[in-house]
Amino acid sequence: MKLRRARLVGLRSGKEYDLARLEEWGEGGETLDLQPVGEWSPVRHRGTSIYERFRDFWYLPVEPQQCSLGEGHTPLIKAPPALKHYTGLDRLYLKNETANPTWSFKDRGTVACCALARQYGENYLATVSTGNMGQSVAAYAARCGMKALIITPATAAKEKLCSASLYGATILQVATDDLCRLKHEISPLATKHGLRITSGANPFRVEGYKFESFEMWEQLEGIVPDFIAVPTSAGGHIRGIFKGWQELEASGFVESLPTMVLVQPAENAPLAAALSADLPEPITFPPARTLASALTSNDPPGGTDLLNIAKYYGWLASDVSEDGIREGWHVASRSGLWLEPSSAIIFPALKQLTAHGKLPREATVVAVMTGAGPKDNTVLKGATEDLEKVPLEDLETRIARFMANW
Amino acid sequence: MKLRRARLVGLRSGKEYDLARLEEWGEGGETLDLQPVGEWSPVRHRGTSIYERFRDFWYLPVEPQQCSLGEGHTPLIKAPPALKHYTGLDRLYLKNETANPTWSFKDRGTVACCALARQYGENYLATVSTGNMGQSVAAYAARCGMKALIITPATAAKEKLCSASLYGATILQVATDDLCRLKHEISPLATKHGLRITSGANPFRVEGYKFESFEMWEQLEGIVPDFIAVPTSAGGHIRGIFKGWQELEASGFVESLPTMVLVQPAENAPLAAALSADLPEPITFPPARTLASALTSNDPPGGTDLLNIAKYYGWLASDVSEDGIREGWHVASRSGLWLEPSSAIIFPALKQLTAHGKLPREATVVAVMTGAGPKDNTVLKGATEDLEKVPLEDLETRIARFMANW
Repeated sequence: MKLRRARLVGLRSGKEYDLARLEEWGEGGETLDLQPVGEWSPVRHRGTSIYERFRDFWYLPVEPQQCSLGEGHTPLIKAPPALKHYTGLDRLYLKNETANPTWSFKDRGTVACCALARQYGENYLATVSTGNMGQSVAAYAARCGMKALIITPATAAKEKLCSASLYGATILQVATDDLCRLKHEISPLATKHGLRITSGANPFRVEGYKFESFEMWEQLEGIVPDFIAVPTSAGGHIRGIFKGWQELEASGFVESLPTMVLVQPAENAPLAAALSADLPEPITFPPARTLASALTSNDPPGGTDLLNIAKYYGWLASDVSEDGIREGWHVASRSGLWLEPSSAIIFPALKQLTAHGKLPREATVVAVMTGAGPKDNTVLKGATEDLEKVPLEDLETRIARFMANW
Repeated sequence: MKLRRARLVGLRSGKEYDLARLEEWGEGGETLDLQPVGEWSPVRHRGTSIYERFRDFWYLPVEPQQCSLGEGHTPLIKAPPALKHYTGLDRLYLKNETANPTWSFKDRGTVACCALARQYGENYLATVSTGNMGQSVAAYAARCGMKALIITPATAAKEKLCSASLYGATILQVATDDLCRLKHEISPLATKHGLRITSGANPFRVEGYKFESFEMWEQLEGIVPDFIAVPTSAGGHIRGIFKGWQELEASGFVESLPTMVLVQPAENAPLAAALSADLPEPITFPPARTLASALTSNDPPGGTDLLNIAKYYGWLASDVSEDGIREGWHVASRSGLWLEPSSAIIFPALKQLTAHGKLPREATVVAVMTGAGPKDNTVLKGATEDLEKVPLEDLETRIARFMANW
């Protein structure tokens, strides 16, 4: 595919940075954003791949396909009746990112980072992760014959680390519960040793997430959803999805923007709490243990820039209690959707906003399902007991009992 | 979508059976097959859904969309370099069925059974399953507000049963290791009590699996693969995929058929061993414990009919040792693909066939990845140990060590 030139720009200063820069953030911690160079009049092309159809929106100087595991191209489905009923939303759609190669949305961003690393001759990928990103980075590194370094706090779900290591990654688990302290400490060390770390809000990762919106736009046949709800930790995902719609608007594909709904656990809501209270800066949370173990960025770098965008465009925020997360997980499961708690959190969030009159019942809402249930079995452990083994001769009685009850 | 009439026909006798028949097999255990009624000149339609585009090939008197969780529409990818190298195949493609709503191919068949149950006014789904089918049936029943009954032998992976129960299913675990004895015993009991059981080779399930081939055909842009390899237990999946290609040929979409490759674990190879030895009947295996815990049909009903098809069309067979399965699982993981062992078995099977000259290196081969790794953590348990927690002050040393080694 034909590639276009792009530049890396600081969101606050407007200053241009070197594309090959090791650090993911600009001076003073400003958020970096990839923008096309020169005249930009994108059109939609033909092709079976979303990368082909929206290639005018791909700004990286390297093709994603060379590193692909088949990420993206995920289903958008109408919500099962039980979930419409629970959230109170009649036109609720679900974007199923658990249909990605490592069963979370991370793969869309990882493929971009992977392709870029190749371009720079770096035969490794490194990340700080509580699980999903580590799995994704480990898998794509394996796909490309690269090494992977996964740096993780002590709170990460053990299953997720195990799987990163089975993909062949080196796991470095650090004796701290504080994800963001870990990120802050590691950044200067990484730069000093020439190590590139790609974290959740990496600007190249954001470019991958954009394509989720292009798919939604196609799948909704040109309708712009009124709201898109996204479980949020570091903020790269929600930023990428919104950027996708911004670019669709800038290029005349659509005439309005969706309102984003930023969802976090109440135990760790640095962005949601700040947005609700109309504060200019994220509220730093103490390291938290929450069922939503993938949503533990307690002091997200770039949080101030994200809040600026959120306030300018009138995003909604919702934080959900641990009981709420458990309830959402249960309702989703009983609707046929087994999500990790960090993803099922989206449903109680929508329920709250509808109950408070912030979401009209007839609004078109897309809830993004970010990660698959089997990736994090923590909740499962309490939910099931050892099963009775029924003797063959009792089968008939049991069948008769089932038939009597449905 | 416009629905066409269909009839249920016995593969051996040619006799027509009632579509609403409770039993999945005909008289004398013959395999049943759904066929269109009247003139049949299918065309490919426009539409974003595979059901829409190939609606002329959907023979059930009920729409799948009403029960859909977004199954199908899975990626076909080029195999990572390490897997091409391992199998010795230069043109190896992977059809990733782990991108389905419950992360296995079963969902394509379950949606058909679910829609049909609704049509018959049956507010339940029941199945005999070692895991993946149970999960899928439980999820779709939950999606539609129906009850689910999952009957399972004592050998089923505990994680899979837990997840079926969290979808809200009733689990009936029977004190036997013998999956097929269980199936044989339960059939008359079910009929007696009016219980419909949909098993792996259910004729309606097969109709769902066909659509996998229509997707392959589109994704390969009209090329017919020389070989398609499928991990096989009851045989419904491989039969459905082949039927899809047969229908594409019968309707003039393609001019040749792929050769199917039937893969089973050596510890339980009733079909593969019979096919290799050119026997007319499946070889009944004793109940086996194998890493490929989803491939434990030891005396599959309808096995003779499947062997007849296989021999007529010259299918290949391959059985894989436990060490081979472990090796395949490892190689797949180290290529970025975390599959359940029952699915990773496909790669050592292809390697063996290539080494024995049965698969030419330049053949176009599709390997079907049937189920996701996180669904069955059995292998994981041995593969990882507790991780060391590195103190924050040692981070720099560890980073320097990583940088020295890539």
